[in-house]
Amino acid sequence: MVYTKTMNNPFFQKDIVSSEEYIKDDITYILALTQRMKDIATKFGGVSILSHKILAALFFEPSSRTFSSFITAMQRLGGGFIPMHGMAHTSLQKGETFDDTIQTFANYADVIVLRHPDVGLAQRAADIAPCPVINAGDGIGEHPTQCLQDLFTIQDALGSIDGLKIAMLGDLFHYRPVNSLAKALVHFPNVQLYFVSPKGVGIQERVQSYLLNHHMKFFELESVDEILSDIDVLYVTRVKKEYMSEDLYAQVQGAYKVDMEMVKKMKKQSIIMHPFPRLGEIDEAVDNDERAVYLRDQMKNGMYARMALLASVLLPEVSI
Amino acid sequence: MVYTKTMNNPFFQKDIVSSEEYIKDDITYILALTQRMKDIATKFGGVSILSHKILAALFFEPSSRTFSSFITAMQRLGGGFIPMHGMAHTSLQKGETFDDTIQTFANYADVIVLRHPDVGLAQRAADIAPCPVINAGDGIGEHPTQCLQDLFTIQDALGSIDGLKIAMLGDLFHYRPVNSLAKALVHFPNVQLYFVSPKGVGIQERVQSYLLNHHMKFFELESVDEILSDIDVLYVTRVKKEYMSEDLYAQVQGAYKVDMEMVKKMKKQSIIMHPFPRLGEIDEAVDNDERAVYLRDQMKNGMYARMALLASVLLPEVSI
Amino acid sequence: MVYTKTMNNPFFQKDIVSSEEYIKDDITYILALTQRMKDIATKFGGVSILSHKILAALFFEPSSRTFSSFITAMQRLGGGFIPMHGMAHTSLQKGETFDDTIQTFANYADVIVLRHPDVGLAQRAADIAPCPVINAGDGIGEHPTQCLQDLFTIQDALGSIDGLKIAMLGDLFHYRPVNSLAKALVHFPNVQLYFVSPKGVGIQERVQSYLLNHHMKFFELESVDEILSDIDVLYVTRVKKEYMSEDLYAQVQGAYKVDMEMVKKMKKQSIIMHPFPRLGEIDEAVDNDERAVYLRDQMKNGMYARMALLASVLLPEVSI
Repeated sequence: MVYTKTMNNPFFQKDIVSSEEYIKDDITYILALTQRMKDIATKFGGVSILSHKILAALFFEPSSRTFSSFITAMQRLGGGFIPMHGMAHTSLQKGETFDDTIQTFANYADVIVLRHPDVGLAQRAADIAPCPVINAGDGIGEHPTQCLQDLFTIQDALGSIDGLKIAMLGDLFHYRPVNSLAKALVHFPNVQLYFVSPKGVGIQERVQSYLLNHHMKFFELESVDEILSDIDVLYVTRVKKEYMSEDLYAQVQGAYKVDMEMVKKMKKQSIIMHPFPRLGEIDEAVDNDERAVYLRDQMKNGMYARMALLASVLLPEVSI
Repeated sequence: MVYTKTMNNPFFQKDIVSSEEYIKDDITYILALTQRMKDIATKFGGVSILSHKILAALFFEPSSRTFSSFITAMQRLGGGFIPMHGMAHTSLQKGETFDDTIQTFANYADVIVLRHPDVGLAQRAADIAPCPVINAGDGIGEHPTQCLQDLFTIQDALGSIDGLKIAMLGDLFHYRPVNSLAKALVHFPNVQLYFVSPKGVGIQERVQSYLLNHHMKFFELESVDEILSDIDVLYVTRVKKEYMSEDLYAQVQGAYKVDMEMVKKMKKQSIIMHPFPRLGEIDEAVDNDERAVYLRDQMKNGMYARMALLASVLLPEVSI
Repeated sequence: MVYTKTMNNPFFQKDIVSSEEYIKDDITYILALTQRMKDIATKFGGVSILSHKILAALFFEPSSRTFSSFITAMQRLGGGFIPMHGMAHTSLQKGETFDDTIQTFANYADVIVLRHPDVGLAQRAADIAPCPVINAGDGIGEHPTQCLQDLFTIQDALGSIDGLKIAMLGDLFHYRPVNSLAKALVHFPNVQLYFVSPKGVGIQERVQSYLLNHHMKFFELESVDEILSDIDVLYVTRVKKEYMSEDLYAQVQGAYKVDMEMVKKMKKQSIIMHPFPRLGEIDEAVDNDERAVYLRDQMKNGMYARMALLASVLLPEVSI
């Protein structure tokens, strides 16, 4: 689909907290605009449509990709940023409350991008801040902008998302991108989801309920072997050690590893995704296989998708 | 008063270390330009008059508001910045002296903004650096840019500063914004100051001397009750735990708290200010009262005032 | 030499890892462009030729001058940056590999500037990243951009580098700028090098081999006294405590200190350099002597040289 100037912008001044809020038209819009941003970034590096706008990057957890792609996206569009990476130097150290901190940054910035280890804090920030808040990951909750880059990556690589067979492999319980992506996939007809995980870290029940309520077909498996030759997307996750007990970690750690032997069983027209960082879940020998999109396309698409989203949240109409 | 292009800029290439240096015309000028910056920021986000200028933000102490409003102000005016928040990654870690560090950043930046826990270090930096140095708080010394946003906030909310009754409540001994504001208020006729503080944390003697020398009327009290219905401004402070002994903290902590019961006794045409962060000195129930200006106006005005000051320090003439 | 638009740019999309890679024409080009950048920065602050380009500053070690001059240079040319100072907030904390981290930032940035405590990691990053990588110091290896500012400083102060007598004093074994500068000096006819160091921290053997292979004349001494009145450049270094054993540090520490008594023995037309930080190797009384170029020219030239290099790496032709 081609992006045109006349498309209606559904995101102006909106908070982005959960992919549950996306309707199909929102996704169609943002994927089209992401393609347009990709073209612009590739040809010109960027375009200054967000001059004199400021993004506050409030990251209570480490981040390489999400932090960098957000502030890079902002600057490629001509905007500025407040880097609060780790929050160690803020007044939280003096005992200030979360609520006052959010109100504070909302006074200086035009948009707040928040990462926090606790589920629901992004929603809380959105309720408090007069400016839009974008959830850059809230604990084991959601990661609704990772979801946009993932959808774009799938569509870009395979032409369409409709009817695909998508397997999610690994620690699905603690892995927020899985929650956001699975929920967004309900808008695409005939998608089949396979949740493949070691015992104890299966997909969350509230996500299952959401999918059932939206008539989404899904299966839970303990091994990916039987479906490997049939799936279009293998979406691999990291064991989120920092979110689990040592016992559970010992039990789950190393339970899955994608190597070339496995990849060779996959269809030629399939892709392997991983939001990264990886801790050995995908063998480095796989990196050079053309099915592996995690190291380049998936990451770069994160920047393009965030350019699209920031422009849409901050401008009534995105004319580029 | 309306800002016009023909106003003389008194701040070009000047250091801003203490509010003692402001004369009345300086304040008149900067408040008028702050209003202009507020108009511009509100309508357009900013204006690129500081392109290719760089601000070095050297913060030896945590800061949310001062750090963010300075780098936001700089970027809204088209300038760039060096974020040295916490100083942990500088050569101070290798044993470099303060003096060499200041000289270093003065080579790359057009203006240095410095926060430091020790009184007098801002003046020392100003003496060393060839470029202008702005004091963003030096221990229990001064905070001369907080003072500007406070003056603007008062004038903006109440129309004029002349003749107002202003009470400062709390730990006044360790709270630098109080020092800077009290000294600047000597330029406004018939202002009456009330310093209300628990024992042991009263207003510093050198500030009292300054006020007496400048014929400023002030009173010291231990309770705000008797003047509450009469004052125009209630300026609340935080107990600066990090600057006092544990004994003193135990004695002072929790000694005052502004709640709605108190606020109801205040005049309708009065305001409650706090430079923040707060640690319980103002009940959150007060936030929604229209007299409470601390969460929005006072913070935002900090950005506008710093836009005005940065432009004036870096440009011979501010024509906007 | 005057920079002209028609000069061929030898650095476009190149990695800058070691000064061994510079040929004489490269140096001639970059010194001429550095002069041009100095003129522009002095007159206008900068020029926006790198709009929508992004620099990722990945610093695994503390840095004041290199970090600041790089991000300042980038912003003075209109570009943006990703500040990863200390790397504490990246996914390295979650266990991500160096290789994956480099690949990640290469997806968002147009150029990576890397400082790392281990020799060879800059080369490794350059091998991995699709975008150019600039070595901002790799352990006791190289510092090839410090070398450019040093060459410019010498030429600017003394007119020409040819035929000069240059003494390097101090811990030469652990001090990477010395390695890069010595190697680059092989391109200048009749330069004589004197390596003056306490026992145990002499110039590295592999550097000596390089110089011998390139027919460079050099001498090793334990005292600078006998050559002091004869040299054109005294290049002083810091004892790199963080790279040596406690025993070696105890032995080397305080072994040399440049004071006014020594400086008075030097020629009027000579200069004293130090890449900084200093830890007492040069007495502060020397700072005001006109031979001392370390506190202003040498640092500022770092910014100009990096403006020249960044523009050249990122643009096919630098027309300014």
